[in-house]
Amino acid sequence: MESIEKALYYIVDENDEHNRLSKFFNYFLMALIILSVGEMALETDDGIFLPYRNYFRIFDFFTVMVFSTEYIIRIMTAHLIPENKGKTRWQAVKTYIFSFAGLVDLLSILPFYLDFTNLDLRVLRMLRLLRFFRVFKITRYNDSMKLVADVIRDKRSEIGVIMGLIFIIMIIASFIMFYAEHDTQPKAFPNVLGCFWWAIVTMTTIGYGDVFPVTYMGKIVGSTMALLGIGLVAMPTGIISAGFLEKINERQEKEKQKKEKPEEDKKHYCPYCGHKLDD
Amino acid sequence: MESIEKALYYIVDENDEHNRLSKFFNYFLMALIILSVGEMALETDDGIFLPYRNYFRIFDFFTVMVFSTEYIIRIMTAHLIPENKGKTRWQAVKTYIFSFAGLVDLLSILPFYLDFTNLDLRVLRMLRLLRFFRVFKITRYNDSMKLVADVIRDKRSEIGVIMGLIFIIMIIASFIMFYAEHDTQPKAFPNVLGCFWWAIVTMTTIGYGDVFPVTYMGKIVGSTMALLGIGLVAMPTGIISAGFLEKINERQEKEKQKKEKPEEDKKHYCPYCGHKLDD
Amino acid sequence: MESIEKALYYIVDENDEHNRLSKFFNYFLMALIILSVGEMALETDDGIFLPYRNYFRIFDFFTVMVFSTEYIIRIMTAHLIPENKGKTRWQAVKTYIFSFAGLVDLLSILPFYLDFTNLDLRVLRMLRLLRFFRVFKITRYNDSMKLVADVIRDKRSEIGVIMGLIFIIMIIASFIMFYAEHDTQPKAFPNVLGCFWWAIVTMTTIGYGDVFPVTYMGKIVGSTMALLGIGLVAMPTGIISAGFLEKINERQEKEKQKKEKPEEDKKHYCPYCGHKLDD
Amino acid sequence: MESIEKALYYIVDENDEHNRLSKFFNYFLMALIILSVGEMALETDDGIFLPYRNYFRIFDFFTVMVFSTEYIIRIMTAHLIPENKGKTRWQAVKTYIFSFAGLVDLLSILPFYLDFTNLDLRVLRMLRLLRFFRVFKITRYNDSMKLVADVIRDKRSEIGVIMGLIFIIMIIASFIMFYAEHDTQPKAFPNVLGCFWWAIVTMTTIGYGDVFPVTYMGKIVGSTMALLGIGLVAMPTGIISAGFLEKINERQEKEKQKKEKPEEDKKHYCPYCGHKLDD
Repeated sequence: MESIEKALYYIVDENDEHNRLSKFFNYFLMALIILSVGEMALETDDGIFLPYRNYFRIFDFFTVMVFSTEYIIRIMTAHLIPENKGKTRWQAVKTYIFSFAGLVDLLSILPFYLDFTNLDLRVLRMLRLLRFFRVFKITRYNDSMKLVADVIRDKRSEIGVIMGLIFIIMIIASFIMFYAEHDTQPKAFPNVLGCFWWAIVTMTTIGYGDVFPVTYMGKIVGSTMALLGIGLVAMPTGIISAGFLEKINERQEKEKQKKEKPEEDKKHYCPYCGHKLDD
Repeated sequence: MESIEKALYYIVDENDEHNRLSKFFNYFLMALIILSVGEMALETDDGIFLPYRNYFRIFDFFTVMVFSTEYIIRIMTAHLIPENKGKTRWQAVKTYIFSFAGLVDLLSILPFYLDFTNLDLRVLRMLRLLRFFRVFKITRYNDSMKLVADVIRDKRSEIGVIMGLIFIIMIIASFIMFYAEHDTQPKAFPNVLGCFWWAIVTMTTIGYGDVFPVTYMGKIVGSTMALLGIGLVAMPTGIISAGFLEKINERQEKEKQKKEKPEEDKKHYCPYCGHKLDD
Repeated sequence: MESIEKALYYIVDENDEHNRLSKFFNYFLMALIILSVGEMALETDDGIFLPYRNYFRIFDFFTVMVFSTEYIIRIMTAHLIPENKGKTRWQAVKTYIFSFAGLVDLLSILPFYLDFTNLDLRVLRMLRLLRFFRVFKITRYNDSMKLVADVIRDKRSEIGVIMGLIFIIMIIASFIMFYAEHDTQPKAFPNVLGCFWWAIVTMTTIGYGDVFPVTYMGKIVGSTMALLGIGLVAMPTGIISAGFLEKINERQEKEKQKKEKPEEDKKHYCPYCGHKLDD
Repeated sequence: MESIEKALYYIVDENDEHNRLSKFFNYFLMALIILSVGEMALETDDGIFLPYRNYFRIFDFFTVMVFSTEYIIRIMTAHLIPENKGKTRWQAVKTYIFSFAGLVDLLSILPFYLDFTNLDLRVLRMLRLLRFFRVFKITRYNDSMKLVADVIRDKRSEIGVIMGLIFIIMIIASFIMFYAEHDTQPKAFPNVLGCFWWAIVTMTTIGYGDVFPVTYMGKIVGSTMALLGIGLVAMPTGIISAGFLEKINERQEKEKQKKEKPEEDKKHYCPYCGHKLDD
């Protein structure tokens, strides 16, 4: 029993870079996730779905079976993950089930089983899309992801201030726009909320063309907004730019210090037993 | 009397981070401001306003009462603000009333009282939106706001040059556009001012689709403008980017110097009496 | 005669920051240029122009008289400009007339005099807009302008490469688009040149909505272009950003060096005679 | 024979900056490429093509003859390229034919010869556009191109993460959009794939106006997407900005080190014989 669990863990393990079997398994799951999202997309087109509904059902059944099996294996092998060392088996299982990854894994298979209850689960089925985030588990992207996340966290306060300012400007512009355009275009600018939609479409420079000012006053407000928009779009870019440079400089300095005193405490754990290895 | 004023000041005080009561009061006011803006937005939709007009009136009355009370308290306690120490009571009150914050506070309640005069005060009522800027008073955003404001001030001259250049290019393009498109589309390009609207919509890459060139000449001018637009949008971003980095480097150097000689002159004031405390 | 010329030069001189008279004269000219551009814009609207045509003519006559007088003064005082010291009077005049500023000054008044010849001079009259560039002569913007110009010059080669790449991608996309959309929308995509207009409108994210793909192939090409567009717009911004930082660092280093050895060779010239002054 | 080959190589050689004949030949080819692309563009307009079809054919014949001659010369002189020194003649020819440049050269003339086989070769003919990339061979752009390419390569992982994130957000938004808008606008949002087209047009801020949300739910999703779009467009710009600065700093440090120890191993090769020259 013990050895079967270890063998299964060896397959689903995501932390060992040199484990070919788990690598293959992970790429297989990822392919399945992408195909599964593609299937969900095609299902929404009746012209494609109706003639081939049986094939869709079979594929759906197959993917859910694979993901369910994976879910069960992960529960069975939760206590073998190095991070869970020291916990009891039951604690390790609970840790997995209530982790973000565990909830995503569960929620993405649940809709299939609830389907027999005849509820309208379309929204619930979209939970399967959450699995998509697992694509980022690939090791070689981890460093870049961490860098991107670090910069966003570091600069969230400055970006928040800018977003707040944009928001206030958009609200004020919406009110002015309402008084300027409502009488001329009551359908395009029905109320301040409708004007806010115009403000977003203008400030982000999308400009669908469904709502645009026609009065002189409206065009003046629109022009001001558009020009402010350039400046306010430039701000986050500048902040993020500065953030990346800071982070990169920090790293380079750390690397310099590392070179001077070599790391002695780099430890390797055995993926089977969790013991420290004398590499 | 003195002690009541101090107790009231303790509530409306915005400078003391550890004062829980004033914190609660500030968040309450902020919530009221946001709700009040929401109310103004909903009022513009007759379908929502007319059936519930009485509720809107009651809410309006309530908010104005709260803001009026706050205004009176601020006048009564103006002389207790540490910055006004040394001034007479009357001078402190005058300082508050004619400060930006004081004028905003007054203008945002005034429309309600003037309503009984049967004037059309719709535009005046929008003054209430000014209160919105008070949201930025939250302490934890102060540093970020200062950084953003510093960068804009530092770089206003470069940004001014770029904006001036954009403006001149847009004017010249408007004239060319008028001669190129007016005969073909007299409604879309009625005069140079109308062409300037096109220039703004194009240069900021909004592109509503209400005006666009159809002649060869117009399309050539439009293409040139669009490509110049990329470059000219890139300029402010680059300038602001550089500005943030400069500021961040400056701060890091200051922090280094601070570490070497610890600040001795950091003073704390009692929020009640304005006296220096031996923390 | 000599002293009159010097007095006139004192008025039109642009290099002396402390000369109040020339400052006033320059601001007056600038105001006249802006009003003159405004007049040209209003002239294009028949509803405004026709009832007030006489006022327009009088204003036009007045501005041309002022600019003509200025032109004559500049010719008369060309030999008094410090930079022209050492040249004969005739050489100095020739230098001014064939300089960029001189040609702009001439071309902007010429159309008025040619008007009597009954030619269609509408395009020629637009030359008056060139005067607009003189707005940038204001001293306090000079440093910022130089910085902006330096960055553009430094990075023109990298920006050229990016622009070349964008251009090639747009051409290739235009050809693919033609084969994808021409049969379905022969009017929107009449030929490759028409598709190029689509490519510009898409790549710069303007998106007027006059031309857009409807076929699957066209939408795939459009999506690719749109996503590449983000990247390719990001490139110039990044390049310019880096350029500004380089320049700013350079200046800071120069200032450091300056502080160490004070400038001894700073010379002041008399605006009247061009002689070196012992300040 | 040997001397003829050397003379021909002297003409087509691209590595020698001081070789005037090859420079002229290269500019001539480049002009021909640009004219040839222009010809292809004009051919797509029946109004221009049909009356002048004979001229188009003659020009087409002429260009293919020139490019064919160049191709033959390149094969004949492949063994004279310094990089191919040491290889046998046959190996050098094979190296050229299967190189990217060699394949481009072949594919761009092939369609002309296959034309006699009466196949529909329109797509194949577009291969001629590939020649366009040869424009970048001009020496003075090489440094800038290398810089741009280096930055893209350095940052491809971070940009990949951002693009992946954008992609996942767009897919999720497409699904929500489908459930929000499909019932109201079945034509604009026919299926999830159609919604994905909307997501691209919105996220890149193009906003053609062919598809846009009209329901409240759709507008909320659209607004969120639009605001996220600003942030996500700012990210690549920030990354690339940082990349350029890193590269520029690296270069400056290298140049400093170079100044300290002058390069001794700079070698010059004779373009005729490939021998090292004692410059």
